[in-house]
Amino acid sequence: MTNTETERKVETAQTAALQLAQLSDEQRRTALLDVADALEARTDEILAANERDVEAAEELLADGEYTRAFVDRLTLSVSKVESIAEMVRSVADQDDPLEKTLEARRLDEGLELYKVAVPIGVVGAVFESRPDALVQIAALGLKSGNAVILKGGSEALHSNRTLFEIITDATADVPDGWAQQIEAREDVDTLLEMDNAVDLLMPRGSSSFVSYIQDNTSIPVLGHTEGVCHVYVDADANLEMAEDIAYDAKVQYPAVCNAIETLLVHEDVAETFLPAIVDRYEAADVEIRGDEATREFVDVEAATDADWDTEYGDLIVSARVVDSLGTACNHITTHGSKHTESIVTEDADRAETFMRSLDSASVFHNASTRFADGYRYGLGAEVGISTGKIHARGPVGLEGLTTYKYHLEGDGHLVATYAGEDAKPYRHEEFDGEWMPGRLAGE
Amino acid sequence: MTNTETERKVETAQTAALQLAQLSDEQRRTALLDVADALEARTDEILAANERDVEAAEELLADGEYTRAFVDRLTLSVSKVESIAEMVRSVADQDDPLEKTLEARRLDEGLELYKVAVPIGVVGAVFESRPDALVQIAALGLKSGNAVILKGGSEALHSNRTLFEIITDATADVPDGWAQQIEAREDVDTLLEMDNAVDLLMPRGSSSFVSYIQDNTSIPVLGHTEGVCHVYVDADANLEMAEDIAYDAKVQYPAVCNAIETLLVHEDVAETFLPAIVDRYEAADVEIRGDEATREFVDVEAATDADWDTEYGDLIVSARVVDSLGTACNHITTHGSKHTESIVTEDADRAETFMRSLDSASVFHNASTRFADGYRYGLGAEVGISTGKIHARGPVGLEGLTTYKYHLEGDGHLVATYAGEDAKPYRHEEFDGEWMPGRLAGE
Repeated sequence: MTNTETERKVETAQTAALQLAQLSDEQRRTALLDVADALEARTDEILAANERDVEAAEELLADGEYTRAFVDRLTLSVSKVESIAEMVRSVADQDDPLEKTLEARRLDEGLELYKVAVPIGVVGAVFESRPDALVQIAALGLKSGNAVILKGGSEALHSNRTLFEIITDATADVPDGWAQQIEAREDVDTLLEMDNAVDLLMPRGSSSFVSYIQDNTSIPVLGHTEGVCHVYVDADANLEMAEDIAYDAKVQYPAVCNAIETLLVHEDVAETFLPAIVDRYEAADVEIRGDEATREFVDVEAATDADWDTEYGDLIVSARVVDSLGTACNHITTHGSKHTESIVTEDADRAETFMRSLDSASVFHNASTRFADGYRYGLGAEVGISTGKIHARGPVGLEGLTTYKYHLEGDGHLVATYAGEDAKPYRHEEFDGEWMPGRLAGE
Repeated sequence: MTNTETERKVETAQTAALQLAQLSDEQRRTALLDVADALEARTDEILAANERDVEAAEELLADGEYTRAFVDRLTLSVSKVESIAEMVRSVADQDDPLEKTLEARRLDEGLELYKVAVPIGVVGAVFESRPDALVQIAALGLKSGNAVILKGGSEALHSNRTLFEIITDATADVPDGWAQQIEAREDVDTLLEMDNAVDLLMPRGSSSFVSYIQDNTSIPVLGHTEGVCHVYVDADANLEMAEDIAYDAKVQYPAVCNAIETLLVHEDVAETFLPAIVDRYEAADVEIRGDEATREFVDVEAATDADWDTEYGDLIVSARVVDSLGTACNHITTHGSKHTESIVTEDADRAETFMRSLDSASVFHNASTRFADGYRYGLGAEVGISTGKIHARGPVGLEGLTTYKYHLEGDGHLVATYAGEDAKPYRHEEFDGEWMPGRLAGE
């Protein structure tokens, strides 16, 4: 009967989504501020529930099943709840991604076409460990007018239940059923099959987890698998700049997807550049694995074939000496994950070739790969990073949770008028204008 | 070995796609004009190949396996080849969908982010019957810088082979392998599994054919399944206008997806409106199937439950009397296919409610549903109509075959500068500017 219940929840969300799409930004914003206040007011309940999850996790930590880092991510505190509430307020205050006319075109006198931003509908989110993920996804969904189906990890079961209850209690003015929670693994399988009811899936977790979701559904997936990013130090690089960028891109925060895994160095500058960067890396405890040519210049471990395809997510970097820009681009095309790559060069033509010929979501010139991030890009609240090419690519803001509808305002216009022998021609004039419900802009 | 060959073809297309993305609009345009000339120059070859297909089809027509309409769609002529060549020229002359900066944002002094339109990569097209589909999809792909994998129906085998040969011969200056042809049904299965290499699928054919593709791949699909469209005649409709719109939406071209299947009529105007429209429909040989309330006003066949969900694609219409706008919207939500719906009313508030509350790609006020079309919308060459909500929705122009990349131009910028205690703030200023390869806009 679990499946039937999940189906019922998704159908309820579908109905709610239609009503939710009609709320004004002020209504959605107010609801989110109420959620933030409720989270703070009910901190004790959250912490009590979280304690039950943490206790269970500590036992599994003792058994060696969980790591300390895992249990830390799971653990909430008063200040952590405050920062979650602040995150909700910041989502509330984002620019409205809806109620925007993206294009307006006069097809003919009195016949006006408007392309209007609207919510996608029902978004399913499946995520692991951190309980703040539930709140963040619910907040992003509500701000963008989408109904959400939330499935957290079993390790955060009690925390998630309490957070979900607080969110639904605080959004009593929002169409009932806009947020739904599912808990069992079988429910996820049901969700993955409901391609007629769920419009988008947002998995969050390890690459293998995201890949599993992608491989087991025909629902579109907004997610991020691997980040095997590169810095290429060109023959014409400012080597001091290259050193700083290579260092920042690896060391500033090695655990994230936009940190580099591989450094590609042109042979003309390898002798000068490699010893300098290796000194700095070693001072920061970075392990370096080099190809044969690299090891002629610096004394580092030998890289294996597997190194070029590996996302370390740690203080490890592989290095390869290349004979040309073309070889560097081929290496990236063969081994990269189309995430983020940077060239360091003073030569504009080579920068252009690098940026044009790579099929990565973000391609940089003389900047650290670590800038590939929704906040740094100025996109506002980050929905996620997409390694797909369709719909949303790279860092994704709230816009990624919207689609559009065409609104056509006419005055009895018929296609027959524009067809056949005496066909009237279309005007097709773009104009600046917002859709005025039920009225022509000219009136 | 077939599978291996298909895989090799797709991989060749992947490599070609990277080079194709770097051609200028002028290069792509010139190549397309060459294709158009070659099609006209080699008309005899095309007609000879087509004759073989048509002969085989005539036999199956005699056996009752094919319809006359099917064989007619398959048959080419001198004037048909000319019109295909003209279509290619019109695609060639479209505005370039690439080389556009969609957004430019200064993250900080000397650190400029550009969101740049780029091709999607490798597009797989699987289509039935008409040989002109092969040429059209190849032309749209080339104009938008995408490599294409083409799979036509077996009934057009010889026509498609010749057309493909002419296209590849005429595009010798375009990166080799940009267009690939596959022929066997097993090759399609291979294609559907290559989600790491194929970026988008464009199936063309019946709803069941498109649904089959959607259900058997995790590659994103740009396609169109059903078109169950509605006209709702409100209590405050101008009834003369409503009659014209209901007539145009059904009769002007009944075989297409944006023609209506169901007419919803408010009970307050049913007595006046229904007899009038039924007269006009009957004069045009439209078969009308009504619910019980409809049949109180007009003498028509009884509609069954199945009628409300059926895309007739023919001169048949179902009619239902409703007691309110809400009932009309509920009917459309329950039975519609989220394609195109129109309300006829003089009441702006009710038009707004209708347009906001329906989750259809196109929602119209006082206009015929037949306007839902890329050409009429002024989108230029029509890539297709999408019934999905992600990436592209409704009528899709060349823009639907593009995605974007982020280009970041820096001057040695590091994330460390913007993190930690003395973090420098971002500026995040939007500005009007085109990406200048390898250079900052300020220089």
